[in-house]
Amino acid sequence: MYIRLSEAYRYINENEFYNHNAVVIDVLRATSTMITALYNGCRHIVPVKKAEDAIRMQKDMDLVSEGILGGEQDAKRISGFDLGNSPLEYTRDNIGRKVIFLSTTNGTNAIVNAKHAKKLYIGALNNASAVARRVAAGAADTIISCAGTGGELSVDDFLTAGAIIDRIKNMDQEVRLNDSAIAAQRLYQMFCGKLGKAMAGSLHYEKLKKLKFDADIEYCLREDIIDLVPQYNDGLVVK
Amino acid sequence: MYIRLSEAYRYINENEFYNHNAVVIDVLRATSTMITALYNGCRHIVPVKKAEDAIRMQKDMDLVSEGILGGEQDAKRISGFDLGNSPLEYTRDNIGRKVIFLSTTNGTNAIVNAKHAKKLYIGALNNASAVARRVAAGAADTIISCAGTGGELSVDDFLTAGAIIDRIKNMDQEVRLNDSAIAAQRLYQMFCGKLGKAMAGSLHYEKLKKLKFDADIEYCLREDIIDLVPQYNDGLVVK
Repeated sequence: MYIRLSEAYRYINENEFYNHNAVVIDVLRATSTMITALYNGCRHIVPVKKAEDAIRMQKDMDLVSEGILGGEQDAKRISGFDLGNSPLEYTRDNIGRKVIFLSTTNGTNAIVNAKHAKKLYIGALNNASAVARRVAAGAADTIISCAGTGGELSVDDFLTAGAIIDRIKNMDQEVRLNDSAIAAQRLYQMFCGKLGKAMAGSLHYEKLKKLKFDADIEYCLREDIIDLVPQYNDGLVVK
Repeated sequence: MYIRLSEAYRYINENEFYNHNAVVIDVLRATSTMITALYNGCRHIVPVKKAEDAIRMQKDMDLVSEGILGGEQDAKRISGFDLGNSPLEYTRDNIGRKVIFLSTTNGTNAIVNAKHAKKLYIGALNNASAVARRVAAGAADTIISCAGTGGELSVDDFLTAGAIIDRIKNMDQEVRLNDSAIAAQRLYQMFCGKLGKAMAGSLHYEKLKKLKFDADIEYCLREDIIDLVPQYNDGLVVK
């Protein structure tokens, strides 16, 4: 099995996903939010690129009663939306049995870019071991696609990829890695248990800190608290 | 000053170099070879993409007597060429006062891609501190462009970028880094003094090992043995 890490979704063409499994990571915060929402009982998530898409789709699907609009623009809750992009808002009370239309820029782009994958898993630190088990069991060449920030490598996503890769390697020594995956794994091993320290100074992490999303960060950095791997199928993120 | 690291030249458009200084890195082995050749007294280096370009240009310039054909295809010396891409071949006896037509795939592509930079420096571990001093003194936003391998991040170039960035940061705490630069610096700090260990398993490093280029690797990994920063101007790499 060959694991190829791509540091930012912009670096990889959608056609490269054919015949591969894929893991998409946007740990601060889109994929952490999706995993949390599904764990807390939402029916499914419709990831969309723009706020107006979320509003239109919610109306078209006649789901106003049980639909929730969630998401961020420039890291802040979109005006008129029920929820932002904080996983801590996606409690059982708020989203249980509901359909969520989630508008996030990077995370959604990264997922849609990987749509030709045979299986497309949603990964974060919260479910790192569960994702690793799924990848190892799949025994197919796998692309780990980081959303990144501003079209470039983001330290938070890169370290999360490292966490997942490290677990896969521990399960199967024979797995081959591309150089990016090797670098991410080594960086993760060095900062295991102090991931916040490794992220200090990085663009998106510091932006969230400045906006007082410290509780979100603390939550998103918790490894293996959720034993669930969402999958993307035909436009929906499901359990 | 803002330092932006690009993990592979393919990830960055040539127009992004306008109004920036740049450092191009292809540590195994093109930029190490260029630095060594200029240190050992060659007149200048003409980096070209293809073997036939080197042969044609050498003829066109009527420099057969003092011109040297050097370079690699698939890491091996090109048939009919005077030298390969091993820095250890570029001794004073072999190349003193001569013009070198150097054909290397990744290194040349990375240099040509960065041609719009205000100043374009040639970097490697051999001259890491010298490059860092030049960048810090330039006080201009700088793109560090790794050649990479096969269009992707290469651990050897990424660590070399980290070595240079770490030195720049030590000279000027105020320098701002993009996330890729932060990741490279942290990885370098963790593996400082044991860079070969960090490169173990990586694609290009292992390929050179397999081809018995151990002496080249050992040489290319030596930090700060040359106090010289080649520059690229109008198609030539000069002192």
